[in-house]
Amino acid sequence: MVRKLAAELLGTGMLVYFAVGVATLSFGFGTAGDSYAAGVVATALAFGLVLLALAYVLGPVSGCHVNPAVTVGALVAGRIPLVEAVGYWLAQFTGGILGALLLWGTFAGSPGYNRSTIGLGADGWGAASTIHINGGGAFLTEVVLTTLFVFIALGATSKTSNDTVAGLTIGLALSVCHLIGIPITGTSVNPARSLGPALIVGGTALSQVWLFIIAPLMGGILAAGLYMLIFPKSEPVQRETLVSGAG
Amino acid sequence: MVRKLAAELLGTGMLVYFAVGVATLSFGFGTAGDSYAAGVVATALAFGLVLLALAYVLGPVSGCHVNPAVTVGALVAGRIPLVEAVGYWLAQFTGGILGALLLWGTFAGSPGYNRSTIGLGADGWGAASTIHINGGGAFLTEVVLTTLFVFIALGATSKTSNDTVAGLTIGLALSVCHLIGIPITGTSVNPARSLGPALIVGGTALSQVWLFIIAPLMGGILAAGLYMLIFPKSEPVQRETLVSGAG
Amino acid sequence: MVRKLAAELLGTGMLVYFAVGVATLSFGFGTAGDSYAAGVVATALAFGLVLLALAYVLGPVSGCHVNPAVTVGALVAGRIPLVEAVGYWLAQFTGGILGALLLWGTFAGSPGYNRSTIGLGADGWGAASTIHINGGGAFLTEVVLTTLFVFIALGATSKTSNDTVAGLTIGLALSVCHLIGIPITGTSVNPARSLGPALIVGGTALSQVWLFIIAPLMGGILAAGLYMLIFPKSEPVQRETLVSGAG
Amino acid sequence: MVRKLAAELLGTGMLVYFAVGVATLSFGFGTAGDSYAAGVVATALAFGLVLLALAYVLGPVSGCHVNPAVTVGALVAGRIPLVEAVGYWLAQFTGGILGALLLWGTFAGSPGYNRSTIGLGADGWGAASTIHINGGGAFLTEVVLTTLFVFIALGATSKTSNDTVAGLTIGLALSVCHLIGIPITGTSVNPARSLGPALIVGGTALSQVWLFIIAPLMGGILAAGLYMLIFPKSEPVQRETLVSGAG
Repeated sequence: MVRKLAAELLGTGMLVYFAVGVATLSFGFGTAGDSYAAGVVATALAFGLVLLALAYVLGPVSGCHVNPAVTVGALVAGRIPLVEAVGYWLAQFTGGILGALLLWGTFAGSPGYNRSTIGLGADGWGAASTIHINGGGAFLTEVVLTTLFVFIALGATSKTSNDTVAGLTIGLALSVCHLIGIPITGTSVNPARSLGPALIVGGTALSQVWLFIIAPLMGGILAAGLYMLIFPKSEPVQRETLVSGAG
Repeated sequence: MVRKLAAELLGTGMLVYFAVGVATLSFGFGTAGDSYAAGVVATALAFGLVLLALAYVLGPVSGCHVNPAVTVGALVAGRIPLVEAVGYWLAQFTGGILGALLLWGTFAGSPGYNRSTIGLGADGWGAASTIHINGGGAFLTEVVLTTLFVFIALGATSKTSNDTVAGLTIGLALSVCHLIGIPITGTSVNPARSLGPALIVGGTALSQVWLFIIAPLMGGILAAGLYMLIFPKSEPVQRETLVSGAG
Repeated sequence: MVRKLAAELLGTGMLVYFAVGVATLSFGFGTAGDSYAAGVVATALAFGLVLLALAYVLGPVSGCHVNPAVTVGALVAGRIPLVEAVGYWLAQFTGGILGALLLWGTFAGSPGYNRSTIGLGADGWGAASTIHINGGGAFLTEVVLTTLFVFIALGATSKTSNDTVAGLTIGLALSVCHLIGIPITGTSVNPARSLGPALIVGGTALSQVWLFIIAPLMGGILAAGLYMLIFPKSEPVQRETLVSGAG
Repeated sequence: MVRKLAAELLGTGMLVYFAVGVATLSFGFGTAGDSYAAGVVATALAFGLVLLALAYVLGPVSGCHVNPAVTVGALVAGRIPLVEAVGYWLAQFTGGILGALLLWGTFAGSPGYNRSTIGLGADGWGAASTIHINGGGAFLTEVVLTTLFVFIALGATSKTSNDTVAGLTIGLALSVCHLIGIPITGTSVNPARSLGPALIVGGTALSQVWLFIIAPLMGGILAAGLYMLIFPKSEPVQRETLVSGAG
């Protein structure tokens, strides 16, 4: 259990450090004359490819949820007991905060970095959204994206699916969520990815962070329902690991 | 059979929601000073990677056609009976319309969104094409692209091929179709991907949508012929599933 | 043998149609204010991902060389007899010409398309190179890139390697060749990819095409030598297929 | 042993030739009006995808470390004896220098190439960093990135992991390191990747190269500790090969 929690903490920290780091470099720092769409591609690849790598390395240890919304989906689908889910959540939020702190420490070495203007890749709506989505649209977007993402995560690790490609499937699905979600809300689909940066940046990022905790968790619950609808015969055989190795 | 149709409906809806969503954000919303080519990459990755993920998750359930042109190819190649194909088509068109509606509902939360000027990633020719392709060129392009795409889909799931990489192969082939097709027609190769957005946007998108239904279906039929030419000995052993898991 | 030659012709035609098509759209058509680097990414992905898909589909049929330089490497490495190699070359050059013709026919539907100014993604040096590489530098580049690419292709299909990832390895290696080679020569590493477009475009493209036939063939021969140096014990067990399926 | 060292030399040379080549073309040559973010994507893909291909081809021969920081991690984790590690380091640094020389020879064919202004994709801090990171921030970044990268490399090749996806995992993890690291230091995480270009370019690149040798090696050692913490039961069973084929 300690190894599992250590894996979830490390994995969530790495996800935030790498991918929120790329988001901050792509959108926070004002690189003159640059392309918004290319920054979207870079950030979406960073989120998806780091999750892909983590899934194959940490999957055999903890299942590599690294996301409280995935854990709530696994809980509702009966793959993980409540006490373990609570441990996972604590490890994930702690990892997200530590990853954000390490990232802040890194950017502190840049003379042009300013926490309040450049930020730390925080999610948001209204003025904090590229297309100025309103709060209702942001909530809807986060619920829909998380439902579809966690459905993919549960389906890719079901009994009928092919373990070898599970990490590829889940990682690239996260990239797709970011390709569409970055211009809308910045894309959370993961409360731990949102809380850490928001605590450091403060301001609007912190006052809006509740939506990026509640909506993804609702999406995770809906995903479990959708999963049980489409895969009705699957039993909770993979209780311990979400993504497991070939062995 | 109900589970199969539910999977086709859900899959086609997800394909339209995610990938047409990225197309709309990349080309519809006017992000100043941005790169057209980077938008092409983002949109092509969205279409391909969401299909890759869907193929591995829904493949074991319904074969994950999520495209009436793939279903017509599977029908002509003898992999699926006619009555099932009709059910698939209904599920796919319904899913495409629902996915487009959900996308419209999402963008309604953006004050700058306007259905008639920004649209919903519709396909088209003439003034609606980046290189102003004429109707004949658009028809030729959609027939050729769909023939090659459905040939890849049938070939990647033949008896002699490796199931583990089928979703990767088919998804990335769809990305390639979009890399070349976006500047020409916007890329359909999938009647269900075109009908949903066209019904909502109306205008030119709706008056031109017939081409993006007929040409891909013709391509799907040609693909089945090409497949039977190159793989003459393959029998319809994978009747139920186009892409299946490792189990 | 007829099926093999049909597969090589079809595969080379598809490679040229798709990937040279993306090159023409990215660099030939003048999309105002666009990003050169994003066009490099789009074109490199098109070449690599279409080869990846072709390798998994046509690999079990013909080995999916779709490149005379790969065939010469396989010949020197003892994997294919001379008479079969000659057949492959004829099929590949014919496929490349047909693919280029189909692409020309497609672009003919665009009123702004002009064969002599927009071209067809031809390779070149001097004024035809983005960095104005001279003839010697172009020759060196094509020899080096093809040596490394064909070495990867031979190594990924050796007895000790993992068949499941062979298409992925070879396809993505071709993407890397294009990421570096596009600004230098446009990247051939494949005589059949260069001859077809050059015959249609004429002018400088045609007068320089000899280099993009000779240098890649030399690279293919060097690759076979390098392969036999690093993998000395490998026997020609995979005589018929370069990339084979899991069965 | 000779084959192993030849593989490490060839592999490191190819990594530097291809990926540092793309870095130089993306950032050194001044392509007017271009996108910085698209260049980051191109360069990150080049580093990751060439490593992916090398891992699957050279993995069964030498383990495909092609990076002194990976070798030090494998040494500390008990997977490789010291005498072999020393041989690997010599081969890797030699390969990196030869790759950089070949790249310099290639660019010498471009009339606009100037070694001191355009450089050769060297790493750096201060004025040599896009975000003007200071020396401490550069050191921290290289230690953190290398720790996480080598942890992924060791974890993806542990007893419990799936060999088929090891090259994919490690290659794409390197892409992620570059997506975040390019704007900060240019990204080393590999002393052999930094030394070769620095020796040729001289100036600031050479005077700062010590950091890009020491920090990655420290990261490699930390990675081995982190690995043994999360994977405590793994024994050094894969002594000879880091990434091995399916056979």
